[in-house]
Amino acid sequence: MSLSKNQLKLITSLQQKKYRTVHNLFVAEGTKVVNEFLNSNFELEQLFCVDTSKYKDIQKIIQISEGELKKISVLKTPNNVLGLFKIPSISPLKNEGLILVLDEINDPGNLGTIIRLCDWFGVTQLVCSLKTVDCYNSKVVQASMGSLTRVSIIYTDLELYLENTNLPKYASLMNGENVYQSVLPKNAILVMGNEANGISDSILKYLTKSITIPRFGELQQTESLNVATAAAILLSEFKR
Amino acid sequence: MSLSKNQLKLITSLQQKKYRTVHNLFVAEGTKVVNEFLNSNFELEQLFCVDTSKYKDIQKIIQISEGELKKISVLKTPNNVLGLFKIPSISPLKNEGLILVLDEINDPGNLGTIIRLCDWFGVTQLVCSLKTVDCYNSKVVQASMGSLTRVSIIYTDLELYLENTNLPKYASLMNGENVYQSVLPKNAILVMGNEANGISDSILKYLTKSITIPRFGELQQTESLNVATAAAILLSEFKR
Repeated sequence: MSLSKNQLKLITSLQQKKYRTVHNLFVAEGTKVVNEFLNSNFELEQLFCVDTSKYKDIQKIIQISEGELKKISVLKTPNNVLGLFKIPSISPLKNEGLILVLDEINDPGNLGTIIRLCDWFGVTQLVCSLKTVDCYNSKVVQASMGSLTRVSIIYTDLELYLENTNLPKYASLMNGENVYQSVLPKNAILVMGNEANGISDSILKYLTKSITIPRFGELQQTESLNVATAAAILLSEFKR
Repeated sequence: MSLSKNQLKLITSLQQKKYRTVHNLFVAEGTKVVNEFLNSNFELEQLFCVDTSKYKDIQKIIQISEGELKKISVLKTPNNVLGLFKIPSISPLKNEGLILVLDEINDPGNLGTIIRLCDWFGVTQLVCSLKTVDCYNSKVVQASMGSLTRVSIIYTDLELYLENTNLPKYASLMNGENVYQSVLPKNAILVMGNEANGISDSILKYLTKSITIPRFGELQQTESLNVATAAAILLSEFKR
């Protein structure tokens, strides 16, 4: 067996969101990440593999050459295996615990880091605005390192979502209440905004509280923390 | 005026650490980052600029074309200006407050994020092992977004450094004391280890305490937090 032209075409097409939607498939790469998906509820469509010896119990496998793997991989140093997995159907929205809401996060690396953080801190529901980068984008899949298999992610109209949710709603802002002095509830929504513009006004009006990580350095500097870094600290504060 | 062959050669050579050392120069790019260095104690060697109208009071400026900027830039979308700055002489080591020590951080993006975090949390002394990526690497300079101008960074033999320092020494580990339950002193050393291998054994023996960010998600997963993310949470805990 080796790679057919149609397979090559399918896999490279999945770099674009519209084709991921059409085929209901996404790509995961490398031994570590692929194994996390294989050991999860995600359904395997097809595995493309150079050294198949470690996947003897898998039926849906196609052996390919190093050269063929390079053709279908988006990684600088492809690592043995590339898997096509089905995009799962959306789980019912949870309405308790800490729920993280993202208003237009653009950078795949940031989203991947945030998904990993959710996994670490036991935040199982992530709600993304429709303009947030797709979580099945290959950079997000690789950066989240399998945490995608444990965090439920939904893309939805945030205004509608926030309007219909009764949990206390926290905005991560530059000029909110000092987070270290805030009493943070177990059940809450935390909203993080876009890398450059923060939370949009249309979303802000639904939020009831605002929190800020105070700056300890020289006060004249207005530089903000990276959104994934801020998420790390705020999730830690909610959970500690 | 425009770009000479020698200037082109010099600037591209500075992508390598050995030539940064030879010339004692590094590159900063883009309006925002360059302005932070111009407004700091760093000494400008030469500014290369497309639209010079905003730098009228600067003598050491050379006007270049968009095409020339593209040639010397390492950014995908070069932004008007590239500056050569002198690498400053090393400030005396501080021996109070919180001092962050890095044992072989390899990823420039991680180091840049960590420098930005130090700046945010008022950590003014960063001590790096000799194998840690160079802080004047262009990716570090761009990722730290000017925080380099406010954090003092030294590269040194960590064993010697730790042996000769009396502050309490904390290791960031996977199996240390729960950081949320630890009493953290104002004056301390916090050591973060390499992305893949953590803190090396030769360093670990000098450390007196260990702390860990507990995992709240499913316990069977052993995935660790990214080092920059962990640094964010630990610095926040020391400073809150």
